[in-house]
Amino acid sequence: MAVRKQKLINQRETILRDMLEGLVSAYPNIVRLTSAGLIVRAQPKASGKVGLVIGNGSGHEPAMIGFVGEGLFDVNIPGEIFTAPGPERIVAGIKAADRGAGVLVCVSHHAGDLMNAEMALELCQAEGIEAVEMVVLYDDISSAPKGSEVERRGTAGLFFVWKMLGAYAETGASLVECKTMAERIRDNTRTLALALTSCASPVTGEVMFDLPEDEMEIGMGVHGEVGIGRHKILSADATIDLMLPRLLEDLPFVAGDDVLVLLNNSGSLTLMELYILHRRVAQLLQEAGVRHYRSWIGPYATTQEMAGFALSLCRVDDTLKRLWDAPCNGAFLKGV
Amino acid sequence: MAVRKQKLINQRETILRDMLEGLVSAYPNIVRLTSAGLIVRAQPKASGKVGLVIGNGSGHEPAMIGFVGEGLFDVNIPGEIFTAPGPERIVAGIKAADRGAGVLVCVSHHAGDLMNAEMALELCQAEGIEAVEMVVLYDDISSAPKGSEVERRGTAGLFFVWKMLGAYAETGASLVECKTMAERIRDNTRTLALALTSCASPVTGEVMFDLPEDEMEIGMGVHGEVGIGRHKILSADATIDLMLPRLLEDLPFVAGDDVLVLLNNSGSLTLMELYILHRRVAQLLQEAGVRHYRSWIGPYATTQEMAGFALSLCRVDDTLKRLWDAPCNGAFLKGV
Repeated sequence: MAVRKQKLINQRETILRDMLEGLVSAYPNIVRLTSAGLIVRAQPKASGKVGLVIGNGSGHEPAMIGFVGEGLFDVNIPGEIFTAPGPERIVAGIKAADRGAGVLVCVSHHAGDLMNAEMALELCQAEGIEAVEMVVLYDDISSAPKGSEVERRGTAGLFFVWKMLGAYAETGASLVECKTMAERIRDNTRTLALALTSCASPVTGEVMFDLPEDEMEIGMGVHGEVGIGRHKILSADATIDLMLPRLLEDLPFVAGDDVLVLLNNSGSLTLMELYILHRRVAQLLQEAGVRHYRSWIGPYATTQEMAGFALSLCRVDDTLKRLWDAPCNGAFLKGV
Repeated sequence: MAVRKQKLINQRETILRDMLEGLVSAYPNIVRLTSAGLIVRAQPKASGKVGLVIGNGSGHEPAMIGFVGEGLFDVNIPGEIFTAPGPERIVAGIKAADRGAGVLVCVSHHAGDLMNAEMALELCQAEGIEAVEMVVLYDDISSAPKGSEVERRGTAGLFFVWKMLGAYAETGASLVECKTMAERIRDNTRTLALALTSCASPVTGEVMFDLPEDEMEIGMGVHGEVGIGRHKILSADATIDLMLPRLLEDLPFVAGDDVLVLLNNSGSLTLMELYILHRRVAQLLQEAGVRHYRSWIGPYATTQEMAGFALSLCRVDDTLKRLWDAPCNGAFLKGV
């Protein structure tokens, strides 16, 4: 099985600190690391604009430390590997993001992240910090059926929210408007993932799940959560033929819609394979009369060296297109 | 061994075509695919400016198909997997890049690429196409000793040339000036690579080379060419401690120099590991009094799913800094 148990680190105990110090050593003009272990913008957003915060377990790089910067997040609260940050650290992140117009806490829907964010908001209330809102984000159609969208997990498709919400907050939109925009992007986004191999935890060295060398699993979550089915490995075209119709019918995306496409590399898939997969995505969208607006192909939210990908679609109107095409400058996301 | 033999493709015979069609399906506003199988800009460069061309074996994506666009290359001539394109295709690429001010053919120094480029230039001469120059690029200090730089291989550090030469050609520099600039960037660039795992050919399914699970090889070439030594896997810091001094003493880079840093992901290394490695690079540069100007960390030239990285440094003055910070827009490289 293609899992690499030996990672190039120093000590398991210092992975998070070493990684964060490494990030800011590379991009001092974009981000800095606070004494509380937060990743914040090197130049804070202008005062009077809504601050955007997100916390997450680490191990999914560049998510989310690579998405702090102009036109993106104000503050990221990185937890230990695959572990949500605690409520106190989230409160510290909220305070660091406050530019006088309120703070929106984005939560990728996982039990630990949601619980800790809810506790953080209670702590804020107890401290008299009023202008804080939370938005819970999800996109993975394999994790709960249509009609139960609120139970779905947050996965790579949240990239669409990071990018467009970030641009929206820069326009001076209010806290309520920002929350409504986050929900609007979320409600137009659908994702389905696939894994060809497992991966190893950098902390324990253990393989995350078992997957035979000649099989692939559809609907795998970002921590190896069980998917919706295993198949013998199919061709690239047959794989997309299996996945894309499920995405289209879920929203549904229909003829005349404009969509953004994300083919997210879970870790060790090659760009060669991702481009080959995109070819079939574009063909099927065209057959369905769905118009392709822009694509992003690369490693935006990973699960260590797992070989796999997530296919995400987001339906966009003229407003969202403008937000998508707005400039941004994070360590891992520049321009548009 | 962490090698994945099953790739997500259609047929081995159609990998190149499927991949190129996939690329242009994703980025129609940036690149298009000609009937001759060339990747060209969607909007050609203004006439009266030098055209930049490069050919290469495929399998190293995003190199080089991802680096065609404004502020980058005009034309890429992609060969089959790990196979240099033939002279006739290079001639077609030269013609496609001609905007009336001559064409510079960049060659990453490998035997097949150099031989075919030389034959292409002879064919051009026979056809009466005069304004074509060639520049041979190399950077890998492990492939030939100091003093024999012209025998060295071209590897990931050529990224510095792609980016800055691309910006320079947009300024309206002449063909001779472009060639001189390419040589100047090359002569200030040094690279050393390291592999933790091998990889499999997507065409044959064969493992490229053998490497025990607990060892790493320093100086590995981009096609698995033998390096300069094997070690038991070291810590991230110890790995950089072994590699960076060799790079510094080769140019040499000295106190007061400004440098660009590239940590290129060969395939399946995690960004987590690359950030941890960069931390030590930044520490050692500071100790040496070498000033860090900008860093790029990610998969710019890969060897399929090989777990490894290349560390490259480029010494820059004010002119090169301006070229580095100039805008660009390729499928895989946007902004700066």
